[in-house]
Amino acid sequence: MKAEIVSIGTEILLGDITNTNAQYLAKRLAELGIYVYYQTVVGDNPERVMKAYDIAYSRADLIVISGGLGPTEDDITKEIAGKYFSCKMVFFPDIWDSIYGFYASRGLAPSESAKKQATFPVGADILKNGYGTAPGCWIQQDDKIMVMMPGPPKEMIPMFEEQVVPKLAFYLKQTFHSKTFRICGIGESQVEERLLKLIHHQSNPTIAPYAKEGEVHIRVTARAESVEKAELLLKPVEKEIYSLLGSLIYAEGELSLEENVYQLMRSKGLTLSVAESMTGGLICARLVNVTGMSSCLKEGRITYGIESKIQQLGIQPSLIDKHGVVSKETAIAMAKGVAAVSGSDVGLAVTGWTDSGTDESQLGLMWIGLFMKGFQKATCVHLSGKRNQMRFRGTSMALCWLLQQIKEDVYE
Amino acid sequence: MKAEIVSIGTEILLGDITNTNAQYLAKRLAELGIYVYYQTVVGDNPERVMKAYDIAYSRADLIVISGGLGPTEDDITKEIAGKYFSCKMVFFPDIWDSIYGFYASRGLAPSESAKKQATFPVGADILKNGYGTAPGCWIQQDDKIMVMMPGPPKEMIPMFEEQVVPKLAFYLKQTFHSKTFRICGIGESQVEERLLKLIHHQSNPTIAPYAKEGEVHIRVTARAESVEKAELLLKPVEKEIYSLLGSLIYAEGELSLEENVYQLMRSKGLTLSVAESMTGGLICARLVNVTGMSSCLKEGRITYGIESKIQQLGIQPSLIDKHGVVSKETAIAMAKGVAAVSGSDVGLAVTGWTDSGTDESQLGLMWIGLFMKGFQKATCVHLSGKRNQMRFRGTSMALCWLLQQIKEDVYE
Repeated sequence: MKAEIVSIGTEILLGDITNTNAQYLAKRLAELGIYVYYQTVVGDNPERVMKAYDIAYSRADLIVISGGLGPTEDDITKEIAGKYFSCKMVFFPDIWDSIYGFYASRGLAPSESAKKQATFPVGADILKNGYGTAPGCWIQQDDKIMVMMPGPPKEMIPMFEEQVVPKLAFYLKQTFHSKTFRICGIGESQVEERLLKLIHHQSNPTIAPYAKEGEVHIRVTARAESVEKAELLLKPVEKEIYSLLGSLIYAEGELSLEENVYQLMRSKGLTLSVAESMTGGLICARLVNVTGMSSCLKEGRITYGIESKIQQLGIQPSLIDKHGVVSKETAIAMAKGVAAVSGSDVGLAVTGWTDSGTDESQLGLMWIGLFMKGFQKATCVHLSGKRNQMRFRGTSMALCWLLQQIKEDVYE
Repeated sequence: MKAEIVSIGTEILLGDITNTNAQYLAKRLAELGIYVYYQTVVGDNPERVMKAYDIAYSRADLIVISGGLGPTEDDITKEIAGKYFSCKMVFFPDIWDSIYGFYASRGLAPSESAKKQATFPVGADILKNGYGTAPGCWIQQDDKIMVMMPGPPKEMIPMFEEQVVPKLAFYLKQTFHSKTFRICGIGESQVEERLLKLIHHQSNPTIAPYAKEGEVHIRVTARAESVEKAELLLKPVEKEIYSLLGSLIYAEGELSLEENVYQLMRSKGLTLSVAESMTGGLICARLVNVTGMSSCLKEGRITYGIESKIQQLGIQPSLIDKHGVVSKETAIAMAKGVAAVSGSDVGLAVTGWTDSGTDESQLGLMWIGLFMKGFQKATCVHLSGKRNQMRFRGTSMALCWLLQQIKEDVYE
């Protein structure tokens, strides 16, 4: 099956917003084993949208569209589709009721023009929108399928995942089953290198690495007639991935690194404090993104200068003099210090060089110190990239290492 | 003049990378008064690239391409262009010398296949690449122009700005002149609302708002026969923008908010410390992104819980009891406290509610406290969005307000 991704909207055409939908859909269609040869962006212009449909069907069987389903005159995606397939437009009263309800639940009354959003080419399957007012639709005529979804990603993505993927699976007489592995410590290209053979020799399951800031996720997706068969296909690949990446996988599933740290600390009843030098507060900033973190994170200290390390954390100046401010000893003393001043079970500390003024051989060197109930440990990492990339990667490495240490109960 | 943006590369087609080049080029071409009706993405396939060129020229005079200029077999952008225009491919020894030099400066020797990167359709103007090995080129034949640039944005953007824009200006017999206004405190849609008339009634200069995380930038671009004439066109629009947005504009030009804070504090010889509650370290994390900040930022304290506010900043528990932890009084006490414990000229503090567990009317309320050489002041803002958006916006608001206060010398 060949597909084309068509994004409709002048705001994308003129570059006012990034076309993340096209990327999302491209990646997901590839994972599902559906070939995409072209992506097209076109503005809210009837003639040009019609031409875009025409060209797309000359080279694909499935057109996946996002955008142009709103209530304004500019929104023409469905209308032109109706013309393309020579279908009349029909008003669906029950869909209108639910759109009306969506507005009402927010204390708003929809304008008469919003009725457009409950009007579809006759014969279309309606795709409900749980996150906005614009339902999507799916038209199937002969061997041509057209899927229309709203532009906002927070509406488009759940509609695609919850309604379009099952319909595609049904059409292709298949089921899709995915699993995500979360990796920290190496870059996307290194992950790809290690998995190269596996990625190239596998068309089912597909293996797709996703580069995220500071980490890489690998999604493995199997297609089969049943979930059980898909799981059987996944198993050997999962085993292979663990043998190639093993300890670099910090978790499976959808929870973020911070959420994993929080859940583990909470389950063990541990409290945490953090002393940050080179990461300048970013570790804490990432942690407090997790709802409920205040029950676990007691304090953060940004000890950017030597003076503040001494004053805030009670480190002996002689220790810094002897070992240097970026050293195992200083990292441990910082961790110990912050645990002590805050009365936390766990102290985590980082100190490193990111400044371009630094001796080049030292640039990117970061020590992570840990203090847990009397136990102390440190590790060092070498970070690359620009200053702020280095710092973000540093926070990921520190949180990931912390997670591993607590998992292994190193302090018991 | 009508243009089409064509992005070439399987990694974009399959969604492995976001097509930020298309967005960048779309926005810039619109600013330059060049109409874009379609954007196309196509993989590294000779037949399909040729078809994409064909379709693009059926609807545009200018094709702006990024991607496919590398040294591998997959890189076919120039070769197919040569075929399209029926031009022989020619090897340029001097270009090869400079590519060779680029490799050599990094201690590498290019492979024989890299000579491809010094080979172009005969008659093409070469666009030099100061940031990578792949030069671009510009082909002009009859009324058709094709511009080919490398895929990596850090190579594409400077090539476009430094070489393609001047060539377009020359071709259009015009000069382009831009100015950027940086805004904090209101969202993109509110900025657009205020500027709506101005944006719609202006085609020269064009006015383009850019939504950035926590702020909005407005770029105004004038086209004229000379820089002087362009500047004359800019002046009244600039005046109008100031009358519509006035105090919301925190700076002009390309320096970031953090860099503006740093430069101002440095020029006034002030040192800073920060106490953060709801922003959890993010203010400091943003500040330390600026090289040299260690000479200005003395300390950061993340006082997430009430206890740590009392212990770290010496705040009286009775003050928090009386006024609440998110209050003018607490914000000022935190600012005063952090300035005192760190011995800084300026103390900045934030405290607010972002938790969904909070009384809904209080959600997003943030107090910013300031202490400068004996002077104290506070302001409050209401933040909207998701938890982490709120927090980021909060850091922008705090830094922006700090900037304004120091600018106005409120403490003198």
